[in-house]
Order: sequence, then C-alpha cells, then structure tokens
Amino acid sequence: MISFEKAFREVMKHTQEWGNEQVPLLESTGRVLAAPILADRDFPPFDRATRDGIAICSTALEKGKTAFPIVGMQSAGMPQQQIGSPDHCMEVMTGAMVPLNTDTVIMYEKISLEDGIAKITGNPKKGQNIHRKGSDLKKGEVILPGDIRITAAEIGVLATVGQDYVTVKKMPKIGVISTGNELVDISTIPLPHQIRKSNVLSLYAALSRENIRPELIHLKDERTVLQERVSKAIRENDVLLLSGGVSKGKFDFVPEVLEALGVAKTFHRVAQRPGKPFWFGVQEVLGTTVFSFPGNPVSTYANYHIYFVPWLYRSLGLPYPNREVILYEAIANTLPLTRFVQVKTFWKNGSLYAKPIQDGGSGDMASLTRSDGFIRLAPKENAHKKGSMVPYIPK
Amino acid sequence: MISFEKAFREVMKHTQEWGNEQVPLLESTGRVLAAPILADRDFPPFDRATRDGIAICSTALEKGKTAFPIVGMQSAGMPQQQIGSPDHCMEVMTGAMVPLNTDTVIMYEKISLEDGIAKITGNPKKGQNIHRKGSDLKKGEVILPGDIRITAAEIGVLATVGQDYVTVKKMPKIGVISTGNELVDISTIPLPHQIRKSNVLSLYAALSRENIRPELIHLKDERTVLQERVSKAIRENDVLLLSGGVSKGKFDFVPEVLEALGVAKTFHRVAQRPGKPFWFGVQEVLGTTVFSFPGNPVSTYANYHIYFVPWLYRSLGLPYPNREVILYEAIANTLPLTRFVQVKTFWKNGSLYAKPIQDGGSGDMASLTRSDGFIRLAPKENAHKKGSMVPYIPK
Repeated sequence: MISFEKAFREVMKHTQEWGNEQVPLLESTGRVLAAPILADRDFPPFDRATRDGIAICSTALEKGKTAFPIVGMQSAGMPQQQIGSPDHCMEVMTGAMVPLNTDTVIMYEKISLEDGIAKITGNPKKGQNIHRKGSDLKKGEVILPGDIRITAAEIGVLATVGQDYVTVKKMPKIGVISTGNELVDISTIPLPHQIRKSNVLSLYAALSRENIRPELIHLKDERTVLQERVSKAIRENDVLLLSGGVSKGKFDFVPEVLEALGVAKTFHRVAQRPGKPFWFGVQEVLGTTVFSFPGNPVSTYANYHIYFVPWLYRSLGLPYPNREVILYEAIANTLPLTRFVQVKTFWKNGSLYAKPIQDGGSGDMASLTRSDGFIRLAPKENAHKKGSMVPYIPK
Repeated sequence: MISFEKAFREVMKHTQEWGNEQVPLLESTGRVLAAPILADRDFPPFDRATRDGIAICSTALEKGKTAFPIVGMQSAGMPQQQIGSPDHCMEVMTGAMVPLNTDTVIMYEKISLEDGIAKITGNPKKGQNIHRKGSDLKKGEVILPGDIRITAAEIGVLATVGQDYVTVKKMPKIGVISTGNELVDISTIPLPHQIRKSNVLSLYAALSRENIRPELIHLKDERTVLQERVSKAIRENDVLLLSGGVSKGKFDFVPEVLEALGVAKTFHRVAQRPGKPFWFGVQEVLGTTVFSFPGNPVSTYANYHIYFVPWLYRSLGLPYPNREVILYEAIANTLPLTRFVQVKTFWKNGSLYAKPIQDGGSGDMASLTRSDGFIRLAPKENAHKKGSMVPYIPK
C-alpha cells in the first residue's frame, strides 16, 4: 500500500499524447487548441469608427473651422470613401472604415445638422472615436496561444481569423468497464439481491463533459470472460477505466487478469478513504493506461476526479489548478489514511467555503448529488479549525 | 436611457416557461430535471456487506465463540444464502447480501483461515461492516429534487432508480441573428473594409454549453430583408438574440423593425459600458422574447452573460448565484454609467481574486480570450481599494 502523494505522482508520470486532428469550427468548443493561432491581418484591419457621427480632418479644426458641409456617407461594409477637401466632412457609422483624408470622428450627439452642414458644438480631440488599424494586434502576431481550452470567446477569435477548421488535440479512446454479477441494466426490475448499473453511466456523463464518448462495457465476474473482453478493450482503447473487482474478494479477478494481459502494475492499494483498493498500471507493449477503481459509487467517482481528471489535463497540456477552500466547520482525520470528504461549497465575501455533508459511506451514490467536491485531509492530521484552508477537488 | 439595475429587473420580469420532455438517460446530462425523483426501493435495497470476509451471528460471539466452520459463500449478485446454525459462518463479498441469520461481517484481515475454520483474531462489534437496508433512503422518499441541473452524479442516481428516460425541462428554441453589411463568412478572404462574422459563432458556442442549438441567421442592413426574415424568426423561435443594428447609425433599423413586427419595447439604451444601445422587448401575441445586443464583440458577449444567462437560469428554475471577487488592484469608475470591466481571476488562500485586463475597447474580440469574466462597478462610485469586494459575472 502506498501513500496518496506517491500514488498521485506515479499516475502523473504516466501521461499520454494522442496527436492532433482537424475539426469544423463549431465542433471545436471544449477541445484543446493544438498550436498557436496567428493574426491573418491587422486587428482592427482598418481605422474603424467607434461612434455614429461625422469624420473630419483635424487640420481644419486647428484652423478654427466649426461647420462642415457633408459630402457623403461611409457605412460599415462599404469600401473606403474619401473627402476631397479638409473643409468637408462625411457621415460615418460605427464599424465603418474612417474615410480617406479624415482622422477624427465626432458623434451625432456632439454636432447639430442643418441644410447638409454639420456644426460642431463641443471641443473634439484629434484622433478621437477611432479604433486604430493594428492597435489590438499586428498581422502575424499570436492571437491565441496553443494548449488552451476552446470556449465561446476563442470560437469568436477563430472565426475572425478564418479558421473554419481548427487543429485540436485528439481525445483518447476510452473504454469504461464495470464488473459485478449483482449489476443489471437500467431498464430491468432488479431482484432483491441485484442493483442497477450506475457507475459506468456516471463515468460516461463525466467523460462527455471532456468531449470524450467512451465505449461502455459490462462484464460478469468470470475469469475467462473478463480476460477475453478486457484483452480486446486494451487493444482498442488508449485508456481503460474499470469499476469493481479490485478488492480482496474471491471474485475480484481484475488485478490478476490485467497482469496476465501484460498490464504492468504501477501500484495496487492506496492509503486513502474512499478508494483504498485502487489499481493502476500500463500495458507494456501497447501503452494502454489502466485506471482500475473500486466498485463503490463514491470510490469510483472520487478516484476519477482525484486521479484521472488531473492526468487527462496534464496529458492534454492543460493546467490543472490546485484549489483550496475555507472550512465552514472544524474537521479532523484520526485515520492513518488520506481522507477525501464530500463537501458542499458556497460563496461568501469573495471566498469559497466548504461544509462536509452527511453520507452513508462509499456505497451512498445519492450523497454525490448533494456535494460539489471533496476536501483532502492528510493521515492523522491535527484537527483543522473552522476558517482554515484545505485542498479541494471540485467535481 | 435606464439604469443597469432597472434594466436587469425588467429582463428578469419577463421569464418564460417551455414545458417538459422525455429524453434518454445519457442525453439528459446538463439538462434540468423537471420533477423530484423518488426512490423505487430502499437504498441500499438489502443489508449489504461493505467488506470481503465472513458473516457471523453475533449471539455466538456473545457466548465467547471465536472459531466458525465456513458453510458456504455469499457473493455479490447471488440470491440470499443462509447459515443453519449460529455456530457457523459464511464467506461474504463486498456488495453481497448479508446471509440470513447473520448480522456481523468480519474482514479477512481480522481472521485466520485453516481447514475450513475461520478464527477471529480481533474484537468485532455487533453489526459492523454492514450497510443497512434503507439506511440511506427509504422507498418512496425523494432521492433527487426537481429543478436541478443533471450532472454525472445525478446520472448515476437516475440509473440506479431505473430512469432510462428522464423528464427534463424543454430548452427554448433560439434564433441568433447578426446584422451588418461589413460581415462576411468565415471561409471568405475579407476585402479591406470587411470582417468575418464571429459574434453569432461565439453565441452558438456559449448556447451549446447550455444544451441549446440555436439557428444562426445573418442579415444585411436592409429594412425589407430584415423585416421579412426577423418576422419568420419571431414565429419560429421562443427567443431571439440579435447582434448589431441597435445604435444611432443611419442603417440601424433593428429597433424600428422589431416594433413594426409587434415586439413591444421594454427598454432601449442602458446607462452601462459596454453595451449601452441594448434593446429588449417581447412580441405581444407570440411572447417571443428579444434580446437585441449592440454588435461590438465585447458588448454582445458581456450582455449575453449579464442579462441572458441569469434570465435563462430563472426561466429554467435554476438558482443563479450572486458572486463577488476580491480586487487585486484598486479601480475606480468616474463615468456616470455602470461599467463592466474584464478581469482575469485567480485563486489564492481559498479566495478568488480579480485583476482587470488591458483591452482595446468593445471591438477587441481577442481580449475576451484573456479574461474569465466581468466585474461590475456602479456609476461614479468611489474608488475601490485593492482587497475590496465587487460583484462578479463569470463567463
């Protein structure tokens, strides 16, 4: 049995890379940008009016001129117009190019209009109300760095620079395998000794948030069935997430089946609660990474968030922030194990507070719906006072 | 022009309801549960062993007995077995039913096994290592409340109670409309006076996070085209999000077109930056709610998060928490407008700090990729010191 810290470090040593692929822009949301994106032109691409009003040449202003005949209209989407004389002006719309021979925009609210003449009432500043060509970014500069998650804001930028297809990091192929003779399908009425499958479906939902659609497999606790089907899954996937079959029970064949299939054990059993029987290894030839979680719902779910999610982020080149929360009540851990305690969090004064929830142990699946994540307590740690900070793993 | 507070209240007065629908369990992630879900049986459904080991009857223990012949094996997924005499024991696996006539489970680590006899080494407590039938929840009790977002944890619970189809709230049908003659398709090489469409694609990505797949429509700034197409969109959608065409420009036809189509204006122009020209109204017969945002990328995006997201949450019956962050540097707002300032946030000591980012004004789309959200500063407010708290709108 190894410590949580050692187990976590070992998992993090075994990251993978899955290469890149091109996807249509609107399907790239939530994916990880593979490489920096460069500006394909200056931003803004032209001197751009930021107000509706008139454009003038500031030299006329400097000469004391306050009334300008309007010689035309420059609207957004219109090729650049021009004024022939610095004594003239042109109407200009927000988003339009600033007309040639003008350098200052005055909004309608600051002029009066009569008989085609614009009279200036205020005291305009040379160059005002113009978003200068290239002032945000020059052509060829990095507009988006690589290794970032694409969200709605990045989609806008990618559209602006014409990326109708985006090069993103490939996501791993993942097989999610549950074991256990007691488990039956959702649509079944279970007999008294049976329960419906739920862990694989929870994992499916959690993985779909990461843009991964795993293959779901359920297996009976039978050595030959397990060996044959897990062997196929190892060949067909980059990662396997197993739930169940890793404890000390007579039908817990998973560790020996995995080892028989060439998955080298990195560790089995971690000094933690929940999830002590966690088994982790890598198939020596194919590199398939195997997270084999205990089958209790809370154990599976906690281990997924504690180990798999940071591993996935690191494999994708994304930062995984260390978070802390403030305890809303005192808590102690007298066990010689690292404990992960389910908490409900809430915001107060710009800070995130956490309050442990009541649960019925690691079999209490419903408790997971009442918590926002887990706090981590070191083995036999001195009691944490109300108001102290502890590491936090959100879910 | 109205204040931000008034505009926000007005928007929140006009929530909608869209009814319910049934979706397959695995497609319900991210949706809102329409009604409470009841436990279809006790949880756990039987007295369930939480350790691998042996099950005994505690009366034998009380009589001082420490060695028990093993008469069989109860594994998970096996109908309930029984022991015939309190002097016997049965092997039992984690997740299995506790055999009839037994009431205590002793893990393998606390016994020695020889010639089919289990000898107890420790001092077991009556009833230990059993997760009692109904101890988490009784049949008929609420296992999930209504009006909650379905995440991976809820998927597990819904599976457990056999909900292969889930009744969720319908999401609104949304049309996203951009206007502007300067806008061209992503796959186009823009002429110097043109830019590629980006706002509608950002909104598409933001809405897809809410499980909404909007219809995307782009229109030229031409009154008749606008009127015809927007009229169709009003009939076919619950909500329209427009971007552009609401300022004071000569081609800003959107407000008059909307009013001509029976959309009653609730307000136009809000004392805020960015997004002052924001227009909001409701079609009087059909009830279509229209959010008409200014076309600058930052304005559209800010207004979407400031007004539309809380409106959507309230319409769906979800809480929308008020959040605050701690300023990492001093900031003042001297304008007579509510300001929304883009910030980058970071965690420190269990608290969320915010630092304003540099941006090139509301046309600077790329700035949105460098921020995590907006802080809200009241008009002409006294300067906020470093370390003080301000309202925060995440994106």
